[in-house]
Amino acid sequence: MTHIHNGADGFAATALDGFCDVHAHLVQRIRGGVMRATATPPGKVAVVIGGGSGHYPAFAGYVGPGLADAAVAGDIFASPSARAVYDVCKRADRGGGVVLMFGNYAGDVLNFNIAAERLRREGIDTRIVAITDDIASAREPARRRGIAGDLPVLKLAAAAAEAGRPLDEVARIARHANDRTRSFGVAFGGCTLPGAEAPLFSVPAGHMALGLGIHGEPGIDEVAILRAGDLATLLVGRLLDDMPAGAGTPVAAVLNGLGGTKQEELFVLWTSVAAGLRNAGLDAIRPEVGEFITSLDMEGCSLSLTWLDDTLEPLWTAPCDSAALTRGTIIPTTPAPKIEDTADQAAAWAPSSAASRAAGQAVAEAMSLLAATLDGAEAELGRIDAHAGDGDHGRGMACGSAAGARAARDAATEGAGAGDVLTAAADAWAHRAGGTSGALWGLGLQSAGRAIGNQDAPSAVGVAQAARTALDAVMRLGGARPGDKTLVDALLPFVETLERESASGAGLARSWHAAVGAATAAAERTADLLPRIGRARPLAARSKGHPDAGAVSLALCARTILKMMEHENV
Amino acid sequence: MTHIHNGADGFAATALDGFCDVHAHLVQRIRGGVMRATATPPGKVAVVIGGGSGHYPAFAGYVGPGLADAAVAGDIFASPSARAVYDVCKRADRGGGVVLMFGNYAGDVLNFNIAAERLRREGIDTRIVAITDDIASAREPARRRGIAGDLPVLKLAAAAAEAGRPLDEVARIARHANDRTRSFGVAFGGCTLPGAEAPLFSVPAGHMALGLGIHGEPGIDEVAILRAGDLATLLVGRLLDDMPAGAGTPVAAVLNGLGGTKQEELFVLWTSVAAGLRNAGLDAIRPEVGEFITSLDMEGCSLSLTWLDDTLEPLWTAPCDSAALTRGTIIPTTPAPKIEDTADQAAAWAPSSAASRAAGQAVAEAMSLLAATLDGAEAELGRIDAHAGDGDHGRGMACGSAAGARAARDAATEGAGAGDVLTAAADAWAHRAGGTSGALWGLGLQSAGRAIGNQDAPSAVGVAQAARTALDAVMRLGGARPGDKTLVDALLPFVETLERESASGAGLARSWHAAVGAATAAAERTADLLPRIGRARPLAARSKGHPDAGAVSLALCARTILKMMEHENV
Repeated sequence: MTHIHNGADGFAATALDGFCDVHAHLVQRIRGGVMRATATPPGKVAVVIGGGSGHYPAFAGYVGPGLADAAVAGDIFASPSARAVYDVCKRADRGGGVVLMFGNYAGDVLNFNIAAERLRREGIDTRIVAITDDIASAREPARRRGIAGDLPVLKLAAAAAEAGRPLDEVARIARHANDRTRSFGVAFGGCTLPGAEAPLFSVPAGHMALGLGIHGEPGIDEVAILRAGDLATLLVGRLLDDMPAGAGTPVAAVLNGLGGTKQEELFVLWTSVAAGLRNAGLDAIRPEVGEFITSLDMEGCSLSLTWLDDTLEPLWTAPCDSAALTRGTIIPTTPAPKIEDTADQAAAWAPSSAASRAAGQAVAEAMSLLAATLDGAEAELGRIDAHAGDGDHGRGMACGSAAGARAARDAATEGAGAGDVLTAAADAWAHRAGGTSGALWGLGLQSAGRAIGNQDAPSAVGVAQAARTALDAVMRLGGARPGDKTLVDALLPFVETLERESASGAGLARSWHAAVGAATAAAERTADLLPRIGRARPLAARSKGHPDAGAVSLALCARTILKMMEHENV
Repeated sequence: MTHIHNGADGFAATALDGFCDVHAHLVQRIRGGVMRATATPPGKVAVVIGGGSGHYPAFAGYVGPGLADAAVAGDIFASPSARAVYDVCKRADRGGGVVLMFGNYAGDVLNFNIAAERLRREGIDTRIVAITDDIASAREPARRRGIAGDLPVLKLAAAAAEAGRPLDEVARIARHANDRTRSFGVAFGGCTLPGAEAPLFSVPAGHMALGLGIHGEPGIDEVAILRAGDLATLLVGRLLDDMPAGAGTPVAAVLNGLGGTKQEELFVLWTSVAAGLRNAGLDAIRPEVGEFITSLDMEGCSLSLTWLDDTLEPLWTAPCDSAALTRGTIIPTTPAPKIEDTADQAAAWAPSSAASRAAGQAVAEAMSLLAATLDGAEAELGRIDAHAGDGDHGRGMACGSAAGARAARDAATEGAGAGDVLTAAADAWAHRAGGTSGALWGLGLQSAGRAIGNQDAPSAVGVAQAARTALDAVMRLGGARPGDKTLVDALLPFVETLERESASGAGLARSWHAAVGAATAAAERTADLLPRIGRARPLAARSKGHPDAGAVSLALCARTILKMMEHENV
């Protein structure tokens, strides 16, 4: 849908004005289109491209050093008039003649040819190259339409012109490049003209149109939408089936978005297209993935391949500067060493005492119990969380604790002390759990692990100190205060009780038992609170009467460890 | 809608893989994100930016010389884990410390701070800058979210780092830039997560949400969609109302598209934003208009302003090279002379005879009659055309002939001969009518005008020759043959009859009378034909039984001229 406009009239012309203002270092607005704002030498062949508007960055975005000299712009999806083509070419000519390029559509063919006849009558040698890359539009190559193949054909011809080659040669290269270029596209949805309420056409939901044109021309088939990998296979396959005679490798590849298909989608698709090209033995040099010729907000994409040869390859990689395409060096650099990310390396565990290693085994066992408990409680924690949030707390705790348990077991097996086992578990927990609670659990466990260290067997007082360290870190970085309806509301009484009991000489199990009671009661009391941070206001009110999922899961974890302590008679 | 994916899992990571493959000259993929593929000197301050995915080109698209050293990437709309932030910063650090930037969201604040504490513990001096440009998100600046202000704040800090400034100064510049940056956005529609069937949120049709966040956070108000000019006034006004203390001019302006709003719309909007800034006395230096931080396929846009000062201005214009933003020279150039397009200059009419000038007056009168007739016939010609085409033939003929009549009258008044009057009318007709028929009428009239010249009073034989010239040009460049169901089917018998009658000595009016009869009968017979060019197949079949609108209007024009001849007794 096109929402920003001042009515349909003048939309294309105003957009072009805005474009020229923003890119004033590259282009200037002239009657009928745009031309370079930078000087070109006398005698240079002028490469002029054009067509209707609504295809940004085609065609004004292609104007700049190393690319087009000028672009003619018609109204939305309408050929520019012969007069506009004539005016722009007359401005662009530097005495070296003009190569005039456009997609092969009846209106464009007519107007560009009328203009070319007039230019020739006035002594400006003008060569016409109608681009015909869309293999879906006709069986006979000369009758095919032009789509995103415009970009490679223009780039190759313009690089030749920039290098000072004469008119005959630039025109020959343009035609040669067009002969070796093939495109195939698909569409998932239509496009809406500025000011219109409904799209020009539509594609049934869940389907895609094969071979659709960029002005709403009908496709050759409609099929169910494919997954990205299969779509890549289809696009590459169709082009390889229509490969030009004598084509080898390398290729120039352009994966073009039609306007409503986002860059992320194109990059996902490109990973499979690149694999498909590699499998076919094709080396894609400097591929381009993005929007190069759009159809307003149409959802869809096309793949173009130009089979390069020794003449074309250096033209494809030659420098250029334009709004749509840049090639070359702005800031001189040298390549950085390639980083090889290996799998997590065997950690170098800190030296540890036998007592701490034994405690590390117990920590690993405790993490396994937590993971089992949280796996069983996932649905219930999710339900509690859904009263105030997005209901993902149970999932995060289950994923995080499972990853923590695996990391703890590995660390303990490799002989890490209790502190290292806990920090290893912490890292894995935070990384896998995602979300705020995962980050806070990772932070808390890591702080506790560093406090416990790898030398002493953890005493009741030591564990209380570690728990306090964890609480401090969670409050400092998490920003929650008591009463905010977060896990702090359970963790704080837990830590205070643990400190009080252990300071009065109680053993770890007895201190922990008392602390669990305090945490559990406090977690239940969070039902009376209203959340103050990290929640949207309507959700905050809705949570009244329900306890905080973070506080509940903290108490649950503490109870689980207690059972293990009681069982093992710590 | 996100159509291209292999399921939701791994979408963001695969998109990042694809991005790094396409932009391998700029970036390399590392665990947790991307970093430059180019070397940086030891001791350089590393500028690292990050956040969730789904915001392309934020944040990986900002990595490159002169901009970020690395980017951390979380899952779609989710903060990266502290471990991911740590991993990326550890790789990016060159011994000069790290400035770590991100939008001010709870999850990001937490994870980036946890990572920063760990980096500091390991001796890597790390400064945190949470970007807070979105004035709609909170009254208190420090509590605001970060949106497209990410770009100017990053650009300014990164340029300082690239220039070798020390950590304290880079961090100070980043905070100073953030303090002077304000953004405000609107949304027309929601965004859809990969694999999801429905958007995360929606905006009522015809409305826009003010101050909406980039992850579907609710806006502060909903209003009817404004025209582009009024929308610009709103955006500029909101930012000026919240101008930082001591702010002057110039400003860095970023007009950002959220993903589903097209470049053409943004350029239209920019023309009004630029006017609004000028009216407020603000000089926008090197404005940026495009997609800089998106929200998948969300429809909407935001305007960001950074009030520059003597420190910031050269940093804003300093060179950089990245997928999202380039600044600087690739191919050395000099500015071209600025082209001043004046209004159509008074044409230099060819020398003409008095007889030809008198005939020119008659031509101008004929053009006026044609315009009046075609204005009256617009609806009927549109109805006929709609059987085989898009129904715009009547509109094109009416617009073209009106423009032709004005140009002819002006030329005749200025003393042009008959040939020049006709070619002036031809140019204007083709330029205003648009479409294929406009181009062909322009071409035909221009060819006829050149054939008639400006010396002889047009004789019957001369007019027949001119008509033949027009027919030849229309057939040569239009590509239609007799029987293709085009205006050629009426024009050919018209010309042949005119030639035969005039060759046998008939005067102009008598010859023309016979020719009109032939053209009218031939136009009616086109109802029996099927179009062969320029029509989609289903429409072609539908047109059977209806005459061709181009042939009908040619006969109508010929009849109109005949009436004038008979009235004036030519």
